[in-house]
Order: sequence, then structure tokens, then C-alpha cells
Amino acid sequence: MQNTQPIGIFDSGVGGLTVASAIHRLLPQESFIYFGDTRHAPYGDKSKSTILDYSRRISKFLVESNCKAIVIACNSASATAYTELREDWPQIPILNVVDPVVREVARLKARKVGLIATRATVRSELYPKSLQQFDAQALMVQKATPLLAPLVEEGFAGTKVSRGALEHYLQDPSLEDLSHLILGCTHYPLLQKEIEDYFHQKVQVLNSADLVAIALQKMLEQKALLNTHGLPASMQFYVSEKTDAFRDTAKLFFGQEIDLQERLLPA
Amino acid sequence: MQNTQPIGIFDSGVGGLTVASAIHRLLPQESFIYFGDTRHAPYGDKSKSTILDYSRRISKFLVESNCKAIVIACNSASATAYTELREDWPQIPILNVVDPVVREVARLKARKVGLIATRATVRSELYPKSLQQFDAQALMVQKATPLLAPLVEEGFAGTKVSRGALEHYLQDPSLEDLSHLILGCTHYPLLQKEIEDYFHQKVQVLNSADLVAIALQKMLEQKALLNTHGLPASMQFYVSEKTDAFRDTAKLFFGQEIDLQERLLPA
Repeated sequence: MQNTQPIGIFDSGVGGLTVASAIHRLLPQESFIYFGDTRHAPYGDKSKSTILDYSRRISKFLVESNCKAIVIACNSASATAYTELREDWPQIPILNVVDPVVREVARLKARKVGLIATRATVRSELYPKSLQQFDAQALMVQKATPLLAPLVEEGFAGTKVSRGALEHYLQDPSLEDLSHLILGCTHYPLLQKEIEDYFHQKVQVLNSADLVAIALQKMLEQKALLNTHGLPASMQFYVSEKTDAFRDTAKLFFGQEIDLQERLLPA
Repeated sequence: MQNTQPIGIFDSGVGGLTVASAIHRLLPQESFIYFGDTRHAPYGDKSKSTILDYSRRISKFLVESNCKAIVIACNSASATAYTELREDWPQIPILNVVDPVVREVARLKARKVGLIATRATVRSELYPKSLQQFDAQALMVQKATPLLAPLVEEGFAGTKVSRGALEHYLQDPSLEDLSHLILGCTHYPLLQKEIEDYFHQKVQVLNSADLVAIALQKMLEQKALLNTHGLPASMQFYVSEKTDAFRDTAKLFFGQEIDLQERLLPA
């Protein structure tokens, strides 16, 4: 394995581009290949065997494209396929999008942690289960915030639409007195500032995209896989179905214009 | 066929409940069976053959449940399955959700008609095609308004969230100077008043749910199938997948508490 090889990043759609963006900001010298399975998005309402099948096929594509590490930038695939993918590719470092943020909760000795996410992620109990695993003592309160993902996707972050929706969801009494709030959906980093403002900066907002990027950096360092050859890095973006709408959304999520290529999910 | 038999109404999800509600208000003596294929919703992004297959299986269930008429309360299924279902069941009156509103546009000799709908409905050109068919001379302008359906489904109609989203979409210059506006999605009747207010009552908003109910009444009259036996009517509501979230949405869409039963899509 050479440290100039790219990092593979995948998601059910374009949401994982916020993770790719965080990785690109922290590690600009790293090349990466992004795969968004937009044809099958969202994964949240699919069966475990279907999500596992898709995740395996995408991972195979990334490994065959010579990736040195894989980042599962999707909550549903993190919940469903992480263990299996590590078994499939024992030689390749694999990160999911849940563990780094929960590890941070444990490290910070957080008192009361809120989690906002899609209905599917809340129902899966993904974050509370991971919390137990890391033996964190924090109290965790989950709140499904189903309008936030479509709202961000349609470009309404930073408008009175997002403010209204956030007020509606965050005024839930169960979220009173939080010390921390996890953004449990890859779309939500685009709402981070508004959420911090809502809580008057009194709640620390944990953005999994940033924490995954930091965890990836550490993991690559440990395995001597950080690219030390400097720029220029290459970035490739694939989606399994391309529509006009994705172009704008992709720019929004990645933070700059990108060239999306259509590619069928590998067999 | 007896006029006491129920009416069958189906949709990909719970949106068609606004159509069921309009039918129930206009024809309270009629019994009906509603089927929402929530397991496969939304149909908009499915292939034609898949939508046709689902529509046929639901219709078979409705016919076998002794329905005297079928209302396709779903834009995607109206576009895809209307002709085929009429061929499958020549003895049963079948209505779709598009033709009644477009026929009204022709009857009113509308000048410039706006259509707001999901991205899939706009892309399908369903309404412009139907307009040609009815030889209406109106100019039609389509506008995709993708956040409106999830927004209504999540209970944000009548809030600053809906007002903000409507302002954003309706200020599009292409919608200037409208004489009429079609609500091209079964979710949108819940936004009708706000939309009328936005246009200061100067644009006539055409609600397909109401127009389908009127068209159904006429059709049943013509075929001597209107129930003349008076109340009580029975209402049955089936969905192919039931979640807690649907219960609230169903109440919102139908306008009163209803008993949703889960039932797999018939084979």
C-alpha cells in the first residue's frame, strides 16, 4: 500500500459530501474517490441485507480503484455494514461515521447529549448503542428531525425556513439542559451555525464530518499512510444516478463546484 | 353493480387522503376503501413498469373488495397506469387525478396557468400533455416545489416554515401574471389558503382533490351508481407499511382521526 493512493468515501447520496469536504479541508494533500449511491437513496428505509449488498458492491469498486482506506460516510451503512466490510477487507483501514463522534462524547465526559437525526437513524438506536460500546456515561436523548435533510438538500439552510424548522424541533423539552448535541446526519453540518446560535453557544455541537476527518488523519498516521508527497491531489466524484438537481446540491454540500460523473453501482 | 358498493381510492402513500377527504365531504353517503402503498412511496422515482405493476395489484385488491369505481389519487400512477387499468377493468369507472383539473382549465378558458408539483411530476410533463389532449389554449408554466410535500407531511403547513418556502418558490418570475394555479400534488391542498393569501386572492387556485370529487360525483350519477340509500357509510384505510409517523400524517391529511390498517400489497 502506498500513501499516494486515494481514500474511498461513500454514502447513499450526496450528504456524505460534507464528510468529503471536511476531509479535504483537513487533508488537502489526499486524493479521494467519492461514490454516492443516489439511485438507491435514502438507505434508511431499506432492509439490512439490501444495504449490506450495496455497501459491499461500492466497497469493491473503491478497493479495485486502489483506495488505501474507506470512509463509510452514511449512517445507515455505518450501522449495517461496518463489521462486515472490515471482515471483507482486513488489510484496509475502514472508518464509519458514528464511532468518532461517540468516542469524542466519551472523551469529553459529556453530561447530557442530544442527538438529532432522520427518523430511520433514531429508530435504529445506532448512536445509543455505540455510546454503550464506548462505555460513555452520558445521558443521550434522541430527537428525529425529519424535515431538516430535505430542507438542506433543497437549499433552505440559512433562511427563515430553516430557522422555523429548527425552532420547532429544538424547543422540545427533552432537549433542555444539554451539554452537547450530535449532528447525526451528514446533511446537518450546513445547519451547524444556526443550531449553535439557537442555543446561544451554550451547547457544544459535535459535527461528525469534522470528527471523522480527524479520526481518519490519526488512523492514516498510525499506519504510515498519510500522503507526504504534497499536492496536487485528485478528487473524483461518482453518483449512481445523476440529475440536474444533484449538481446544485453537490456544490452546496462540498462547498465548491465539482464534476459529478454517473456510474452504475458495480455488480 | 350496486350503488351501495364502496369506491376504491389509491395512492403511493398518505397524500391521496386529501382526495379521499374531498370525496367524503362531497359524498358523505359513499363508502370507500383507501389503499396507500407506503412501503413503496414515493412512486415518482420508480420505473414505469414498476408503477404499473403496483397499480395493477392494488386495483385487483380494490375490485376483489367489490369496489364500484376506482380513483387513482396519485400523480405518478395517473400518468403511468390510467390507460392500462381502464383496459384491465372495462366495466369499472376509473378516474385519475389529473384530467378533472385540466378539464376545468379548458372549461374556464384560463389564460396563464401555473403548475406546482414535485420534481418527478414536473419532469413527467403529465399536466402539459393532458392540457394538449383537452385542447385547452392556456399557457402553462411548471414549477417544481420539492420541499412542499415533506413540509406538509411533517406538519409544517400554516407555519413560518411553509410561508418561507412558499415565498421562495412562488416569487419565481415565471409565475408572474398567472390567472390560475394548479396544485399538482395531493399534499398541497393543506397549503391552499396560504397560497391564495400569497397571491392576494388574485390567482384562482385549482385543487385537484375537490375537482376529482366533483368529477366522481358526475360519473357515478351518469352510471346510476350514486348511493341513494343514505348513511351510514363505511370507510376502510389500508397502508402497505404502517409507522407511528403515518398515524399523525393520516389524521392531518384526512382531517380527522382514522384507523389505519397494515396490509401487504396483494400479489
